[in-house]
Amino acid sequence: MMYEEVLRADCALVENYLRQCFAGRESRADLYDAMLYSLLAGGKRLRPVLALETCRMCGGDVNTALPFACAVEMIHTYSLIHDDLPCMDDDDLRRGRPTNHKVYGEATAVLAGDALLTAAFETIAEHGTSLGADKALAASACLGRAAGARGMVGGQALDMAGEGHSLSLSEVEELQRLKTGALISAAAEIGCIVAGGGAQERAAVRRYAELLGLAFQIRDDMLDVEGDEAKLGKPIGSDAANEKVTFVSLKGMEACEALVSEKTEVAKEALQSTFEDAGFLCWLADKLVKREK
Amino acid sequence: MMYEEVLRADCALVENYLRQCFAGRESRADLYDAMLYSLLAGGKRLRPVLALETCRMCGGDVNTALPFACAVEMIHTYSLIHDDLPCMDDDDLRRGRPTNHKVYGEATAVLAGDALLTAAFETIAEHGTSLGADKALAASACLGRAAGARGMVGGQALDMAGEGHSLSLSEVEELQRLKTGALISAAAEIGCIVAGGGAQERAAVRRYAELLGLAFQIRDDMLDVEGDEAKLGKPIGSDAANEKVTFVSLKGMEACEALVSEKTEVAKEALQSTFEDAGFLCWLADKLVKREK
Repeated sequence: MMYEEVLRADCALVENYLRQCFAGRESRADLYDAMLYSLLAGGKRLRPVLALETCRMCGGDVNTALPFACAVEMIHTYSLIHDDLPCMDDDDLRRGRPTNHKVYGEATAVLAGDALLTAAFETIAEHGTSLGADKALAASACLGRAAGARGMVGGQALDMAGEGHSLSLSEVEELQRLKTGALISAAAEIGCIVAGGGAQERAAVRRYAELLGLAFQIRDDMLDVEGDEAKLGKPIGSDAANEKVTFVSLKGMEACEALVSEKTEVAKEALQSTFEDAGFLCWLADKLVKREK
Repeated sequence: MMYEEVLRADCALVENYLRQCFAGRESRADLYDAMLYSLLAGGKRLRPVLALETCRMCGGDVNTALPFACAVEMIHTYSLIHDDLPCMDDDDLRRGRPTNHKVYGEATAVLAGDALLTAAFETIAEHGTSLGADKALAASACLGRAAGARGMVGGQALDMAGEGHSLSLSEVEELQRLKTGALISAAAEIGCIVAGGGAQERAAVRRYAELLGLAFQIRDDMLDVEGDEAKLGKPIGSDAANEKVTFVSLKGMEACEALVSEKTEVAKEALQSTFEDAGFLCWLADKLVKREK
């Protein structure tokens, strides 16, 4: 399948870039080890792939978009390190490996997150001259807005504050829009910015990514329930194993299934009505929402 | 004294800017309260004042430099919040008030730091259009380099790793150059960038700020010892109350006194040989190194 190959090639570009992005730096205790431990821990690389492919769809070169795509992945990685901390979600495992603070200690994990967050903006600024300062600055503004208090960090703050409370569907939607949706949208928009896409193209890409992010999150909640039920031998539909309010606990599995399909279709239409060849990103949307763990 | 008035006016500009910089934002649990709690906790505002005044010295407008100066202060503030965390220095008090995590809890303190760090780069990007994208991008690169793993965060990582170990003078110098010097230098250089200063001007300003940062840190160590001795009734010269290796524990008070004077003089010369009117910044250097707690 051609699209599978494109995806594999994009992921290889991203892995290579991330692997060498701090090469040759003078050692700072175990700071870089901790940064790379999480940065190179695998994952789907959804955000950088989105950036590369929206860039290509808008007529740009994926290699030009690569540093900017990887800057978004640095932000995503730092957020996982900080979210896993004992004072946050207190997780011991991430993608089957011990979390950053379990390996390097809490202090280094906090600093590794801070350094990755900073490195994201540094990467954009340093590659701005070759791209053009206007575009790089627009990318930096887009990333800052999505990653900060108005976006991802704000969503995490709402999530921590909401724990143990019963949230409504619209509250869960808003929380997820900020916590995961904002950065996914920024990734897609940054690819478009790098390619020099106009306002209409940026809006279409943003709409696609927002809907995709939502569908992705609902699917994630569904997979969590299925995973728990498989582990615990509980019948499908019982979500007693989940303490948090999720889309599944609010709407049930069947309605979530329908919601995922609906959001994905509207996401694809947003691209198809604006771009001639949205094939890969439509295929990617289908692939993501049909994924198993 | 004229310079005192300039300093007061600069500080007032900074306080006003910081007070309104998140105005009108939609609430995100207590995230903005936590950010502003630390951002508006006073302090000398050394870094933004340096940025404003190097800008003026290079022929620029302090009002143009203001958002960029305050972006540096956001970075400084986030670093204090994260440094005070239980897993880092575990401090209960900062400037006579409970530390951020004591008031808002650890999770919110981590997030408030993350949000301020992000807001710094967002502020630069958002004010870049009016300044000119090239200059804004140069400021963003300068700040990222100074604040991240190659600068402040790297210094903090070395500091945490060095605790309980005996460090040499050159190791302490390197650590302080990264941990506090890098951001002070960036503040000064960013003012120069905003004003459109050339390579020679940037180099002179950087040299001044590096030396000033070092003198400032040595003076800080001296004040710590004097403070401890005043509290504990110990004779001057005994530094048993200090667990950390400092300039004073390595060199003694008298040699530190001489070192501070020497660094300050060379700092002032760096400016005087390049700029016609370096009056304020020379006065500021003298004021800082002669300060009492």
